[in-house]
Amino acid sequence: MIRIGIVGYGNLGRGVEYAIRKNDDMKLVGIFTRREPTSVETVFNDVKVYHIDDAPNFKDEIDVMILCGGSATDLPVQGPMLLSMFNTVDSFDTHAKIPEYLEKMNAAAKKSGKCGVISVGWDPGLFSMARVLFSSFLTTGKNYTFWGKGVSQGHSDAIRRIDGVIDAKQYTIPKQEALDSIKAGDAKTFTPRDMHLRECFVVAADTADKAKIEKEICNMPNYFSDYDTIVHFISLEEFKKDHSNMPHGGFVIRTGTTGQNDSSNHMLELSIKLDSNPEFTSSILVAFARAIYRLSNEGVCGAKTVFDIPLAYLSNKNIIEML
Amino acid sequence: MIRIGIVGYGNLGRGVEYAIRKNDDMKLVGIFTRREPTSVETVFNDVKVYHIDDAPNFKDEIDVMILCGGSATDLPVQGPMLLSMFNTVDSFDTHAKIPEYLEKMNAAAKKSGKCGVISVGWDPGLFSMARVLFSSFLTTGKNYTFWGKGVSQGHSDAIRRIDGVIDAKQYTIPKQEALDSIKAGDAKTFTPRDMHLRECFVVAADTADKAKIEKEICNMPNYFSDYDTIVHFISLEEFKKDHSNMPHGGFVIRTGTTGQNDSSNHMLELSIKLDSNPEFTSSILVAFARAIYRLSNEGVCGAKTVFDIPLAYLSNKNIIEML
Repeated sequence: MIRIGIVGYGNLGRGVEYAIRKNDDMKLVGIFTRREPTSVETVFNDVKVYHIDDAPNFKDEIDVMILCGGSATDLPVQGPMLLSMFNTVDSFDTHAKIPEYLEKMNAAAKKSGKCGVISVGWDPGLFSMARVLFSSFLTTGKNYTFWGKGVSQGHSDAIRRIDGVIDAKQYTIPKQEALDSIKAGDAKTFTPRDMHLRECFVVAADTADKAKIEKEICNMPNYFSDYDTIVHFISLEEFKKDHSNMPHGGFVIRTGTTGQNDSSNHMLELSIKLDSNPEFTSSILVAFARAIYRLSNEGVCGAKTVFDIPLAYLSNKNIIEML
Repeated sequence: MIRIGIVGYGNLGRGVEYAIRKNDDMKLVGIFTRREPTSVETVFNDVKVYHIDDAPNFKDEIDVMILCGGSATDLPVQGPMLLSMFNTVDSFDTHAKIPEYLEKMNAAAKKSGKCGVISVGWDPGLFSMARVLFSSFLTTGKNYTFWGKGVSQGHSDAIRRIDGVIDAKQYTIPKQEALDSIKAGDAKTFTPRDMHLRECFVVAADTADKAKIEKEICNMPNYFSDYDTIVHFISLEEFKKDHSNMPHGGFVIRTGTTGQNDSSNHMLELSIKLDSNPEFTSSILVAFARAIYRLSNEGVCGAKTVFDIPLAYLSNKNIIEML
């Protein structure tokens, strides 16, 4: 049995708690949190909750720690700290800082002799694997990544920080025209606005100036100003009824050419459609925990990415049958 | 530069000849054939052609041999023979015999200290990788594989063996109803007839009994009797005009569930659409040649499958950017 610990208990941690029960070679040793452990209500009532400060006491009892904290402030600190004691899996997804994070994690692993894999999930993660596979096979070609339709946590948070906003959810929606044009073989370059639409559902305070909030959303740099943005103001009741789930999805498409005068056109596509973004992400983290456990048992140490791990290490099945 | 040899020069070998030119870390040393070398016309006129009996003389000049023979009679003999001298990549695709072939190849590799990867292509190959990845992530679920629309070489050959048939091509076509039902979340079990349709274009001799040929096709066990089969008789001119290409494609779909009472549904899908089946397959073989070259340089020996090779080994790009 692979003995797992969960660090951080939000949507992702809860997803890992579910996912471990779907893998009969694994068991959950405990959840580690910064909160007062007795205040944490787990999904399954036989699960133990500890304070994160107690993690070092579990060095000999946990094979892999699955880090379920956020990329902005949690993982940059927790990642190297925990990899200095445990094998780890995390979903670090601040793209621009991945090389720096990988280097720090690798330094921690080299000291501890442990093994960790970073940036696991569906993007980065499954989608990254598709981009590398597709690009390796069709070396002349172009990759396109679409996200959605689904909830973007970052964009929803950005709206919630606006004065007068009580709650908000932002859906990222791929533009059908862009998808159609790629599938029709038109390998052009798209602007962000060409590829995605942003639709926002906002609950505003009674006293708030809705026109002002809408303007503030649509003009927000980085988040919305480069996109067509639709804002709906709805009641808190409607918000709770229709917008409490976290569906998501997306596509990685590569178009490319081979043969005489590059006259043969090919299209490769990975697409996913998820009822629950955190539950699917967690399921991926758990499969990579198995891989890290096996690599570590073979004496491998260091910080890895999804590109460094043979697929066989992820599975507990007789995979020769899947050839 | 990775020095490549091609063994066997049909559609696949020609595809490899094209694909090598799209990878600037590779060069083609020569093509090895059972035919009289001077009778072979290559795509590029600077390519050398040798008799396959001369292959042993190239032990120090070729890093990886890409085997482009067929699975029925060529690879079972050529595979172990060449792996006893060279690193190899092949597309062995007789599913039932893969474990036996892998074992024979592994024995050859262990003796020579070389490294070979078997069953590379898109199915087995890319599709196998998708099945393993998807199943590892969604452990509760079901895989579906659809092939087509595209030409099945085996089925076309089977028709051509019927008395009175001059030429024939068989297209395997996924049934939209089955695809729709899976995408609508109906995870049922399908018969072969539910999933694929077989459409045949046949050129018959003037004197042939077409009704008899059609009956013989539709009732052919293993190949057609379990499917709905449509037979068209066409002229040789029409056949040459409309049916000389080798398009193909297909889908791997996994539906699965996670979370509380398995109430979250997810769908993962890999789909490909190819103008040229052999050219795309060749492009995959070439990427795996790079991986085998690198593994062998690290001292790895043995027969491998696509599940044993980290994706990073396939690529010549800065892949951290693709995370």
